[in-house]
Amino acid sequence: MFNVKTIQETLEIIQNEFKPIRTVERVSLDQSYGRVLATDIVANQDIPPFHRSSVDGYAVRARDTFGASESMPVPLALVEEIRMGVRPEFSLSANQASYIPTGGQLPEGADAVVMIEYAEEFNDGFVYIQKSIAPGNNVIYQGDDLKQGKIVLSKNTTINAQDVGILAALGIGEVDVYARLRVAIVSTGDEIVAIDAIPVGAQVRDVNAYVILGEARRLGCDAHRVGIVKDDADLIYATLHQAMKENDLVILSGGSSVGMKDNSVEVLNRLGEPGVVIHGIAVKPGKPTLIAKAQGKAILGLPGHPASAFVIFRIFGKAMIEALTENKFKEIHITARLSTNIPSNHGRAEYIPIRLEKKEGEWIAHPLFGKSGMISLLSLADGYLCIERESEGYDRDRQVDVVLYRSED
Amino acid sequence: MFNVKTIQETLEIIQNEFKPIRTVERVSLDQSYGRVLATDIVANQDIPPFHRSSVDGYAVRARDTFGASESMPVPLALVEEIRMGVRPEFSLSANQASYIPTGGQLPEGADAVVMIEYAEEFNDGFVYIQKSIAPGNNVIYQGDDLKQGKIVLSKNTTINAQDVGILAALGIGEVDVYARLRVAIVSTGDEIVAIDAIPVGAQVRDVNAYVILGEARRLGCDAHRVGIVKDDADLIYATLHQAMKENDLVILSGGSSVGMKDNSVEVLNRLGEPGVVIHGIAVKPGKPTLIAKAQGKAILGLPGHPASAFVIFRIFGKAMIEALTENKFKEIHITARLSTNIPSNHGRAEYIPIRLEKKEGEWIAHPLFGKSGMISLLSLADGYLCIERESEGYDRDRQVDVVLYRSED
Repeated sequence: MFNVKTIQETLEIIQNEFKPIRTVERVSLDQSYGRVLATDIVANQDIPPFHRSSVDGYAVRARDTFGASESMPVPLALVEEIRMGVRPEFSLSANQASYIPTGGQLPEGADAVVMIEYAEEFNDGFVYIQKSIAPGNNVIYQGDDLKQGKIVLSKNTTINAQDVGILAALGIGEVDVYARLRVAIVSTGDEIVAIDAIPVGAQVRDVNAYVILGEARRLGCDAHRVGIVKDDADLIYATLHQAMKENDLVILSGGSSVGMKDNSVEVLNRLGEPGVVIHGIAVKPGKPTLIAKAQGKAILGLPGHPASAFVIFRIFGKAMIEALTENKFKEIHITARLSTNIPSNHGRAEYIPIRLEKKEGEWIAHPLFGKSGMISLLSLADGYLCIERESEGYDRDRQVDVVLYRSED
Repeated sequence: MFNVKTIQETLEIIQNEFKPIRTVERVSLDQSYGRVLATDIVANQDIPPFHRSSVDGYAVRARDTFGASESMPVPLALVEEIRMGVRPEFSLSANQASYIPTGGQLPEGADAVVMIEYAEEFNDGFVYIQKSIAPGNNVIYQGDDLKQGKIVLSKNTTINAQDVGILAALGIGEVDVYARLRVAIVSTGDEIVAIDAIPVGAQVRDVNAYVILGEARRLGCDAHRVGIVKDDADLIYATLHQAMKENDLVILSGGSSVGMKDNSVEVLNRLGEPGVVIHGIAVKPGKPTLIAKAQGKAILGLPGHPASAFVIFRIFGKAMIEALTENKFKEIHITARLSTNIPSNHGRAEYIPIRLEKKEGEWIAHPLFGKSGMISLLSLADGYLCIERESEGYDRDRQVDVVLYRSED
């Protein structure tokens, strides 16, 4: 017998049952943005590969310039010029200087570069230094930027544009990343019709599959819709069996009738051990939620109402994806003032959809009541708040924590 | 003659010179996530299409139930049952009730539904109502969810998963969206080599093109690299000319030598009127920035150092993309305490790269000095702060506003 689990218990069970799938694939840099590194990236060389001047100027020993000023320039004997891309074969001795271009390699003995602006030549074999500089000035030391053998990007990093820059600098044209999680969305329920159909009677178009498809993609998954399956245990079994062969996570979306739910539980248990691991969550609207594991694959059965399916996927589907990928997706929270009382809910936690309004520089949270089952709730809600199971309800004007749905808010 | 412009002047010139490109294309719902709507979406039907029961129960006239309770149930005469998907042809009169399934259509005269839990039948032709209910209870009125003729999604909305749900509910399988901005990245500079080359001397790999590619894609553009062009005015002219034919925005990335910059200005002016509109921005590191318009296309020339190119693209490239698309990209700001003094900068605003550290619940901002030209700065910096032109520098412990580079921080 299954008991309904609390939110916390459900998240723990997800964490324990589902382990990261570590399929690795190699992609080119152009295709690597947003992917997750499967290995540490170690610098394969020093960058720069030698002590490099960052300006046009004169390579010097810094201590030879100490005390130099515009009114009291220090003469240094000019030795051969350093040329771009040519390794200097000489060593700089005391009171010598050598012209060096930006990017040029410092000779042995030199430890700083004086910018041309602070040096003057009079064709007398000397350069007159007008400024005292410290060791290291205008020099990028070998390996100062990227050090050979050092980890520059860690395994599990989600690669962004800047990271690709580092890879490009090291000449790494391909990287090993984890394969995207393969997600299939199976719509079930006799009342669900395709979106190009004209619903008759209680029929509704297959809204949820499209909502979940978008969310799964937003969370980095390779997601697709399988289509609508009639509410028949054998058909559902066959469809899930096939979907589980080709995917890591299968979402069962659609009808919320009692009959369909019984069907689903039976089918999920028939698909393999351990079968259903969560049979309802003690949160409104999480009661019809099913979570199962079979044939090493993950299955999530969602409530039927679009806004309910959305919030449950957003919380528990996300937790499953996190467990299966080791990714962490950060939610954006804001604090807002409640515009009205929210009455107590009896023995269950509750996710309340919230519309936000900015008023005199303050966020106001408007709970969207009585909209359960409405499709428009999907776009009316800017986020949700969670009323704890133990709470006796929230009073108007309370400061509440709202989790945002749209990051652009 | 051009003068260096302030940040604000530059943003205003961008706003004035570049107007939205409104190429429209039609995409299927599956491909519509993240795209920008080119039209308002008007509900093409009422949802629900009739007054619908949201529960299994009895359709009634609410006022007939007033005063009903468990101890004093109200008997209502049963009339014919309502069947799913069948339009009731009768009208409900006073003190009548009709069984109705979830999703069923209310008959004329009925204005509420009593849940079966609060009704009892004894096969005497009556149903005994045990609860007083209000008009509208357990009913979703026709058009209550989505109202025919009403705008449900506005033009310029970036379509998210929930929005696709609304479109699916209305049976809208394809939508008109604005074409993605086409962005070409041209790398120039004799010292720039391909990432699979071994740099010799002052040569550096083409880091910037990859960084800008990733950022442009993150901002929703259809971006690609054109490759590396030698620092020759005619070659650059020919490459830009071709790139401008096929793209909306061309990024000139790479070398920062004075010679190359002169070349670029000449070429950009040769490409057409008005040519260069921004020739340097009064911000460190924005001095080498070029912004041009020719043949109705936009061109942005970036500084050569990777971290400089990144921050300039992040601010001014983004502003150009916003002007060309009407999109607004929100930056995430956090307040942090400065870990050290930042000395004044003379007459120019300055973008200071910042590494963030969380310490006892507080964000500490560590300025990354002396790293100019370093590639590692790209991944060391979590964001940047802007020191205003008028400022004499910031003191340690000051609370500063940091704009984040990575949204996951």
